[in-house]
Amino acid sequence: MNENIVVQKYGGTSVADITRIQHVADKIIALKDEGKDVVVVLSAMSGETNRLIALAHGISSKPKQREMDRLMATGEMVTIALLAIALEERGVHAISFTGRQVGIITDTAYTKARIKEIKTEYIENALQEGNVAVVAGFQGIDAHGNITTLGRGGSDTTAVAIAAALNASVCEILTDVDGVYTCDPRVVSSARRIERISYDEMLELASLGAKVLHSRAVEFGRNYNVPILVKSSFTNEGGTLVTQEDTEMEKVVVAGISALKNQAKIKFSNVEDAPGIASKIFVPLASEGIIVDMIVQNIGEKGKTDLSFTIDATEMSIIIPLLDKISKDINSAYNIDSDISKISIVGVGMRSHAGVASTMFSSLADAEVNIMMISTSEIKISIIVTAEQTDKAMQVLHDAFELHKK
Amino acid sequence: MNENIVVQKYGGTSVADITRIQHVADKIIALKDEGKDVVVVLSAMSGETNRLIALAHGISSKPKQREMDRLMATGEMVTIALLAIALEERGVHAISFTGRQVGIITDTAYTKARIKEIKTEYIENALQEGNVAVVAGFQGIDAHGNITTLGRGGSDTTAVAIAAALNASVCEILTDVDGVYTCDPRVVSSARRIERISYDEMLELASLGAKVLHSRAVEFGRNYNVPILVKSSFTNEGGTLVTQEDTEMEKVVVAGISALKNQAKIKFSNVEDAPGIASKIFVPLASEGIIVDMIVQNIGEKGKTDLSFTIDATEMSIIIPLLDKISKDINSAYNIDSDISKISIVGVGMRSHAGVASTMFSSLADAEVNIMMISTSEIKISIIVTAEQTDKAMQVLHDAFELHKK
Repeated sequence: MNENIVVQKYGGTSVADITRIQHVADKIIALKDEGKDVVVVLSAMSGETNRLIALAHGISSKPKQREMDRLMATGEMVTIALLAIALEERGVHAISFTGRQVGIITDTAYTKARIKEIKTEYIENALQEGNVAVVAGFQGIDAHGNITTLGRGGSDTTAVAIAAALNASVCEILTDVDGVYTCDPRVVSSARRIERISYDEMLELASLGAKVLHSRAVEFGRNYNVPILVKSSFTNEGGTLVTQEDTEMEKVVVAGISALKNQAKIKFSNVEDAPGIASKIFVPLASEGIIVDMIVQNIGEKGKTDLSFTIDATEMSIIIPLLDKISKDINSAYNIDSDISKISIVGVGMRSHAGVASTMFSSLADAEVNIMMISTSEIKISIIVTAEQTDKAMQVLHDAFELHKK
Repeated sequence: MNENIVVQKYGGTSVADITRIQHVADKIIALKDEGKDVVVVLSAMSGETNRLIALAHGISSKPKQREMDRLMATGEMVTIALLAIALEERGVHAISFTGRQVGIITDTAYTKARIKEIKTEYIENALQEGNVAVVAGFQGIDAHGNITTLGRGGSDTTAVAIAAALNASVCEILTDVDGVYTCDPRVVSSARRIERISYDEMLELASLGAKVLHSRAVEFGRNYNVPILVKSSFTNEGGTLVTQEDTEMEKVVVAGISALKNQAKIKFSNVEDAPGIASKIFVPLASEGIIVDMIVQNIGEKGKTDLSFTIDATEMSIIIPLLDKISKDINSAYNIDSDISKISIVGVGMRSHAGVASTMFSSLADAEVNIMMISTSEIKISIIVTAEQTDKAMQVLHDAFELHKK
């Protein structure tokens, strides 16, 4: 590991205007003064990506993806130039790099390209000559030199991938929150910042984590074992380290609680329990691009079964005509609960601790929270509750697992 | 020559918003429908370059030039993507190219780079496959892959250089005026659009021409013999063809009249007529970056001479302390006329026609216009008159040389 190299990524709100860009420059110089070699990965100014998308959509409802990537990639080219100018203005040498100039080679899946290779020599040369390397996030080029972008969370992925390629000691994600919390602090006031969390827990805590760190970046960090430190770009305090699971973590049964609101549940009743039924339901939904989240099938009587699944409630208008068709096809009625939430408790300690599920269910029962669906994985238990009972359930679970305590 | 290839360049006002970009797409499709292979060179949206400069100058008064070029080059990347999207939306295949993707190789003189080489294979392949090639003007890369820009008028230069490299039949510069006029139409209402003009005349008509076509592009056209057609992007009529001098042109004595207003004249009187005097005046001015335009020295009496020169009147505040120093140094008083204009008549026919100067001077004398300075070159005669008499002098000369007649 190269202990001296630090990769930092700043999101769009941290470079939203020239005052904030100058603030970022000051933070980087402080790190340089500690003797670190600094690689900075930037997003576009917040709002810029939406401005560019609006321009393209003013011309075409389905703009050609190659050209969209060309267009979107300009946002980061602006911020890296401005940060390099700010650093030079302060007497610190800096060289900016586009995705191409780093040598970030991707496949040709425009708007959602995957990184295939990162060349490190250009950045390493820049660092050796004493420069700060300022890198455009979110972008690369394919084997033919076409500009590609990495899709949502792309700048996080760029930063982690570069940290992996350079064998850096840490990849810092600087954002507008100071870390990942045991629960949404707006709902549960005793929610506590998590100091260390495993990659797997971070991935499972999707709705808590997605706001601060994209899951693709977490997967990249896990695959290449890059420690990722999420912290605020406005203060220098705190932070959450996303890292490999260690024995310390296993003592913590539940690391955090996440909630996904605005969901809807669809239930087909008395479905014939025969091969091919599930595909008759889910293939039509998939072909319309509807993402199905939890799926639960209960064993019923006399060869009949109940099959329930959840979707994002915003998809409701698209799904109704499909459901009517499916209903005829499989000869089964359906009903919809459109005002529900998914709550998940996550922790690697669940693997070695019995009784997590029973603590969860009994505490909710004591509080008279009704559980509508249950789904479990190795390190997560998810339940469906009504929208109305969501906040109460989160508070109850946070207390039951004593997450306010360190 | 490849008769089938047309290179068109659209300036910033022609791509200022998505409505205008869609209008450009329609014009290109009309050309495609005529069976032409079209290469389009674009500027940034008007206002965008100034926006980017303001961002950089908000951070540094002397931003690092490499980073400025990176920043500025994004403006054209936006417009090429949007035009390609608009063409595809209309069912016409289009591929956008940055300077790098074309293979426009420049030197490393950031912010004013010169083109060293243009690779044509990528554009040629795109055309052969039936695409419109949409190229970012104003930009290239140096031998190390750094992004460079070509400075003022850079998109004109890109267009002419690509036309030269492709051996295109014509390079069309589409702008917000419909061509080059014999005189400023706001001053001389009988001013007429020039249909054909030589490269040399175009260069000499600086103040008329600079508004529509940058002199570097004209020089490039001359060196590689690329016919340049300047016309309006809003109408399809008219235009001025800038081309090689031909026998037809020599019959026209004066092609056009240009005026440069807001000048100032400085005269040192009774200067000792000795070697080194001129350098004592002009070296200090040059070292302060003051551009001296006309210089005239009159032979005086008894080894004394009068030496006059003109500058842009906006430089006046800088120049006064320098003049005081020079005055002491060469022991000569000076006086200033700060309210004057330069008027030039230009035409390749002057070479073979006697009496151009006498017609000029006698017509002005008849109209009681006072000539303060005279300077001549092979195809141009320039005079200095007072600001007050400028418009009158232009009208008199336009009439005297019958420029309203074809």
